[in-house]
Amino acid sequence: MMTDTEAPSGHEVAPVRRSRRRREAGSSGPDLFPQKPFKQPRHVYRPVETVSADELEAIHDASMRVLEEIGIDFLHEDAKQMLKAAGAEIKPGEDRVRMDRAMVAELVAKAPSCFTIRARNRAHDLEIGGNAIAFSCVASAPNAVDRDGGRRPGNQQDFRNLLKLAQFFNIIHCVMGYPVEPVDIHASVRHLDCVSDMIRLTDKVFHIYSLGKERNIDGLELTRIGYGLSQEEFENTPCVATVINTSSPLRLDTPMLQGLIEMAKQGQVSIVTPFTLAGAMAPVTISGALTLQNAEALAGIAFSQIVRPGAPVVYGGFTSNVDMKSGAPAFGTPEYMKAAIAGGQLARKYGLPYRSSGVCAANTVDYQAALETTLSEWGAINGGANIIKHAAGWLEGGLSAGFEKFITDIDLLQKIAEYLTPLDVSEDALAIDAIKDVGPAGHFFGTEHTQARYKDAFYAPIVSDWRNYETWAEAGKPIAYDKANMLFKKALEAYEQPSLDPAIDEELTTFVERRKREGGAPTDF
Amino acid sequence: MMTDTEAPSGHEVAPVRRSRRRREAGSSGPDLFPQKPFKQPRHVYRPVETVSADELEAIHDASMRVLEEIGIDFLHEDAKQMLKAAGAEIKPGEDRVRMDRAMVAELVAKAPSCFTIRARNRAHDLEIGGNAIAFSCVASAPNAVDRDGGRRPGNQQDFRNLLKLAQFFNIIHCVMGYPVEPVDIHASVRHLDCVSDMIRLTDKVFHIYSLGKERNIDGLELTRIGYGLSQEEFENTPCVATVINTSSPLRLDTPMLQGLIEMAKQGQVSIVTPFTLAGAMAPVTISGALTLQNAEALAGIAFSQIVRPGAPVVYGGFTSNVDMKSGAPAFGTPEYMKAAIAGGQLARKYGLPYRSSGVCAANTVDYQAALETTLSEWGAINGGANIIKHAAGWLEGGLSAGFEKFITDIDLLQKIAEYLTPLDVSEDALAIDAIKDVGPAGHFFGTEHTQARYKDAFYAPIVSDWRNYETWAEAGKPIAYDKANMLFKKALEAYEQPSLDPAIDEELTTFVERRKREGGAPTDF
Repeated sequence: MMTDTEAPSGHEVAPVRRSRRRREAGSSGPDLFPQKPFKQPRHVYRPVETVSADELEAIHDASMRVLEEIGIDFLHEDAKQMLKAAGAEIKPGEDRVRMDRAMVAELVAKAPSCFTIRARNRAHDLEIGGNAIAFSCVASAPNAVDRDGGRRPGNQQDFRNLLKLAQFFNIIHCVMGYPVEPVDIHASVRHLDCVSDMIRLTDKVFHIYSLGKERNIDGLELTRIGYGLSQEEFENTPCVATVINTSSPLRLDTPMLQGLIEMAKQGQVSIVTPFTLAGAMAPVTISGALTLQNAEALAGIAFSQIVRPGAPVVYGGFTSNVDMKSGAPAFGTPEYMKAAIAGGQLARKYGLPYRSSGVCAANTVDYQAALETTLSEWGAINGGANIIKHAAGWLEGGLSAGFEKFITDIDLLQKIAEYLTPLDVSEDALAIDAIKDVGPAGHFFGTEHTQARYKDAFYAPIVSDWRNYETWAEAGKPIAYDKANMLFKKALEAYEQPSLDPAIDEELTTFVERRKREGGAPTDF
Repeated sequence: MMTDTEAPSGHEVAPVRRSRRRREAGSSGPDLFPQKPFKQPRHVYRPVETVSADELEAIHDASMRVLEEIGIDFLHEDAKQMLKAAGAEIKPGEDRVRMDRAMVAELVAKAPSCFTIRARNRAHDLEIGGNAIAFSCVASAPNAVDRDGGRRPGNQQDFRNLLKLAQFFNIIHCVMGYPVEPVDIHASVRHLDCVSDMIRLTDKVFHIYSLGKERNIDGLELTRIGYGLSQEEFENTPCVATVINTSSPLRLDTPMLQGLIEMAKQGQVSIVTPFTLAGAMAPVTISGALTLQNAEALAGIAFSQIVRPGAPVVYGGFTSNVDMKSGAPAFGTPEYMKAAIAGGQLARKYGLPYRSSGVCAANTVDYQAALETTLSEWGAINGGANIIKHAAGWLEGGLSAGFEKFITDIDLLQKIAEYLTPLDVSEDALAIDAIKDVGPAGHFFGTEHTQARYKDAFYAPIVSDWRNYETWAEAGKPIAYDKANMLFKKALEAYEQPSLDPAIDEELTTFVERRKREGGAPTDF
């Protein structure tokens, strides 16, 4: 087993042109990355339910009482005016907004239950809602980590490399946030460089942050340019998403409300996700945390439908619990699983697409990382989630984006996609003739039935090491972490930048240069 | 991160008396092992279904055609006579037994859908079937492994230590096989020593192997003595189980049939489990492998009901796939998950308790081990399994029992049990008053609602390390494997041998000594 030495400097990654030569030379063949084509997995099995219909109604009712009797603070004057005009109760000079359940129900009902987000490459368009699933990679980590380079504050190179991995692996359907925060770019212009990179280095659906109105407007304009759409086309085509986090408990901050407004106005997607950590920003009981989650999510969603009826939105659930010894957030816990599943029940009750996450609190790529991540995916998949964020590369409760973790999670996600592929139960697959031909004490490997199918019969893992102990020991006892360390570098070598119309490329550059000259966006948020 | 050095000698474990002193001195307090009392988890959520009702019927129909048209070889003269008398078609001089579906249905219907297995300690009695779950530790591994002692052929000390862990952890409900095969005990008398140890070192439900009639009879008699029952009481009380593996494809071997006969005759439990490895002993298609699994399992179960109508049996599913590159068996694959869930659908169709497993192909306790093990548990739990074998300590596709893996799996199982604990959705848990009191921008930690609950609000993991990166790095970056290495030794120190009536103890000794003098059991199987 190799050790987790952390060198002070990051690894070097071959540029695209060099990698193409290498790939032609066969150094990173398809065997290393047995990928299926880009395709959204589907929920083919009935979702699991952790609360009964009555209990679901009780959570709903409690959250309506929160909205009616306690209310939510909306820190945005225009938003308050719009809410008041739509029937909400707001006392003069106060931020507290109370909405009755009829108003909430009427507004939430205007949101679509399913919609398509267009990607720059139309083959990567995403259906959001119904039984469709979209996996997104880790987002918003302040640090990046790999074994060679150790843990370091996020930088542009790491940001770009993680984008390349997200583009390379077909099981990653979108990039819902910066995989890592490139803190070496000044905050005033970071969004300009990052959104340009997301357009250029990937052709999948991506996300812009709601960190002040100017950033939303810049991000929307960059997206419109990158997609080559007119403003009118853009405003009638969901192309880009933002995550709106409530400031739990019971508050929607100014930048988030600006984001909700700008995104809805231009017909773009808001994923409204309260971060209701039971025992910290939410009640210590999971049903209490779900009550708060539901009140906050519906408040944001209802408001979006005042801005623009029919604006595409997603119900986000991110209820977890803290470690009661330290107060640290925990992920992939049993409580997390139950909350993820109940969150799906709530979203379906309102006919809204549902977002969950694939997350863990582990500091490195060990048994804990896999256990917590897989349990959170178990909750998300059993819960019928439509967007599963942070599903590749998330470590340390979101404080690090891990390159090796990205790869081990790709194996998990590919396995989940295969799990969601229905069994072939055709007469031919039932194999009665093969069973008859082989008979007692026989072996199926040599049969025609097997030979005709064996190449694609089973999912071939990219990380799992299925060699026997002796062969594995001779090879130096590599663990999954070791293999992932090798594979992320191979994937970066094999990455190919998607093509972009040179005129669009130039227009992006021109826009970014102008906005940089203007000083970018305010940083006093 | 520590490394996987493998010293030539095993670790030493403090004997019981010394450990009691240590525990009193506080060296292994309850904080290390936050256990809930012994209790069977329940399937509180509706099982998932990977095949439709029509598809289930198609698999059933195909397996009935296998039993009717192809038949199964029964390598046991008496068994064939009994089957013939019950209506099966057997040509003179042949082993092939063909049963029509009406005969199979009638016999299978005699088996109980739910029964209790009595434990030596009645607090450890197990309900088998319905919505009850019983986790069993790893069984039948030829090797044991831990970081200190390395990988070695199983021996009596390892066997006993693994039994102690199985007894110590409340989430392990039974010991369905020798956790490791103690090859330092001669095969003729191994069963005598091992069954005595299972009776003395644990007071949970255990298993005896069907490796020749004499071993079954010895094991049954040892169990009867250990439980202090009369022969009549014993024959009317399920107390012990055996696993009956068919020799896939399409064969039931002599020792297995002897086992089925002896167990059923004495009213004890047979878990009939075909090992239908798709692409090897079974068709390469999962539905074909399930067809074979179903035919073989029902053949064994039908036969058990001829021996003794109402004999307690369990439908075992162990369909997985091979690595098509090497032919090595794979576990915790997506195909495994789908088969585990469909297996549950089949078992429920026949009203039989269902056995599945928590397994992996990993060689050590890494991301792969957790990923594959958790995926197999995902399949077992979603599939409604009643007995989940190999659920703690299984490595290398069953070739090793791992001490560290035992501990990491305990964490997984405890998490699953908590996942299966229904949410509290009472008015009080919904926490509207707490949400009102805290208000926007507040924090829940200090509230009375939290303070009254925080100690038991959430599952406290035994392996997961929730310290932040800096603290964790200062501690030497321990991985789950490191913590598990420490914890299994602490658990062995904290183990207490359950009490046993001295008269029974003496009777066990007398029986074993007599049978050893007689030469034990034949070893020419």
